[in-house]
Amino acid sequence: MQKAIITGGAGYIGSNLADFLLKQSWTVKVVDNFFSGKMNFIEHNLKNPNFSYEKVDLKDSENVEKSFSGNYDIVFHFAANADVKGGAEHPTLDLEEGCIPISNVLEAMRKNNIKKVVFSSTGSIYGEPKIFPTPENAPFPIQTSMYGAAKLYGEGLIQSYCESFGMQAWIYRFVSILGERYTHGVVFSFYKQLMDQKDKEQKELVFLSDGTPLKSYLYVGDCIKGIWHGLNNSNEKVNIFNLGTDEEMSVKKIADIVVERMNLNEKVNYKYGAQQRGWIGDSPHIRLDITKLRNLGWEPQLTIKEAILKTIGYLEENEWVINENYFREKY
Amino acid sequence: MQKAIITGGAGYIGSNLADFLLKQSWTVKVVDNFFSGKMNFIEHNLKNPNFSYEKVDLKDSENVEKSFSGNYDIVFHFAANADVKGGAEHPTLDLEEGCIPISNVLEAMRKNNIKKVVFSSTGSIYGEPKIFPTPENAPFPIQTSMYGAAKLYGEGLIQSYCESFGMQAWIYRFVSILGERYTHGVVFSFYKQLMDQKDKEQKELVFLSDGTPLKSYLYVGDCIKGIWHGLNNSNEKVNIFNLGTDEEMSVKKIADIVVERMNLNEKVNYKYGAQQRGWIGDSPHIRLDITKLRNLGWEPQLTIKEAILKTIGYLEENEWVINENYFREKY
Repeated sequence: MQKAIITGGAGYIGSNLADFLLKQSWTVKVVDNFFSGKMNFIEHNLKNPNFSYEKVDLKDSENVEKSFSGNYDIVFHFAANADVKGGAEHPTLDLEEGCIPISNVLEAMRKNNIKKVVFSSTGSIYGEPKIFPTPENAPFPIQTSMYGAAKLYGEGLIQSYCESFGMQAWIYRFVSILGERYTHGVVFSFYKQLMDQKDKEQKELVFLSDGTPLKSYLYVGDCIKGIWHGLNNSNEKVNIFNLGTDEEMSVKKIADIVVERMNLNEKVNYKYGAQQRGWIGDSPHIRLDITKLRNLGWEPQLTIKEAILKTIGYLEENEWVINENYFREKY
Repeated sequence: MQKAIITGGAGYIGSNLADFLLKQSWTVKVVDNFFSGKMNFIEHNLKNPNFSYEKVDLKDSENVEKSFSGNYDIVFHFAANADVKGGAEHPTLDLEEGCIPISNVLEAMRKNNIKKVVFSSTGSIYGEPKIFPTPENAPFPIQTSMYGAAKLYGEGLIQSYCESFGMQAWIYRFVSILGERYTHGVVFSFYKQLMDQKDKEQKELVFLSDGTPLKSYLYVGDCIKGIWHGLNNSNEKVNIFNLGTDEEMSVKKIADIVVERMNLNEKVNYKYGAQQRGWIGDSPHIRLDITKLRNLGWEPQLTIKEAILKTIGYLEENEWVINENYFREKY
């Protein structure tokens, strides 16, 4: 039984992790600024004596340090600017919401003598790789997004804290994650577009890309189990793992699955974007090599299609989600 | 003929670069906070109509933006916290003096429509590599110092600006640089220690390490020519080059050369440190593969020994340097 802090713990993946750790009888404190995190995602835990939360802005170093006091064993740093697409429009956002928070988190850990950190990194960190599936030790990558650059800094700073202060880190590079509490991204966008046109006989599905990007997706339950598995089965100073599946799927194929699941075949026209890249810095091909964590005994259970269907099931049961404004107004 | 800004242009490498570019009839503006930069290094250019300088703190985004106005073609971003060793004692220094300045420089370039950037990165970015000599596309490295993490962010952010805003970058990963205006580092330390004991018959040379670290060193004149050569002979969106020599030399061997050059043989006892690493985050083995730039026609001219002898010649002629306090008091 351990005492954990989860930054971004009211967010999509962080709140799923909180639920999982509470089931393992861990004590969990969620630290979140509630910009994209939602009270709905944690309120079912409010009566659990092992659960607490605090509203903290990770840019505020003093408050982070105070918030981390109380003999915690481990910090899961999952807070981030989740708006990968917005980088080129707000070029300093990932510095402010990525680099400065990670430095504050590590300093607060150092000052409170917390020695273990788990970090949610990203497959975007490989830029536009030439090797598929892409392994953790791929050639030194070239970044294509501010989001990736900030995650790269996060990984590097964590590693240097491990070297300097005897900390230990588990760094996970995620593909896109699907499942419960999914509130933005391609499946969300397609579902929302079609719901918004509920009353139209003939509907239009607008793509950011030309529909060809090939990406990998992982079910959030498999993601959390992967994080847990790596944490319990790898004990290096710095432990880095890709998290994904062996599959990849085109954006067009995702649309097909969403349309079929919503029984809208023949009623939807696809309107493709002109470019292969959905936005500046978007990598048109992502598939990560998961051999390293697989060799330790982890295996994703759901296919991409099953994960998409789970996601739509969740969105159907939680209609409020698609009317939420996910990203901050204030840019 | 081009108009260039050199950040850190009153520093060791930056001021050598300024001299070189002025000789090519370029217009040069030095932007420096004069923390480790020195007026002595640029004052000989003050009467040159192609030269100007401005005292600017790169943490101050508004002033950087103003300073970069005036139709400049290219920015050489050479400003940095040069105290690599201090990282573990001042863990946020490289964020403040590395990450935030690079973001401000790139934003100021974007707003002033400057499209070319040259960045002084470091061989430290490879962490403790397993491949020697280490090529630019070495396996995805693990950082061991805050300094390396901040340079990694610098490279990544520059790359994402190239992708997002049509900029073009030349990134150089340096080994240790020796030569004129060298004001800190192992040769400086050995020379200063021995000068400080001038009046003692038997002298002691204190090592930070056990004397075994094997590193590569490059003469500053070869470094500047390498930067110039890459800039003129490589035209990708992002151009990354190692700068070093094929040689490596142990710290003990460097001491031997310094002692011999100062005619102090038999008068110096070596007092080794207990650890192989001279400081936390110090990489005990650095030798970079310079094939990529060599294949474009660049070749370093001086051996490491010749570069050490040049350096001592400079220190002898500029006694004031060894009495300067290189690093800021204020941490």
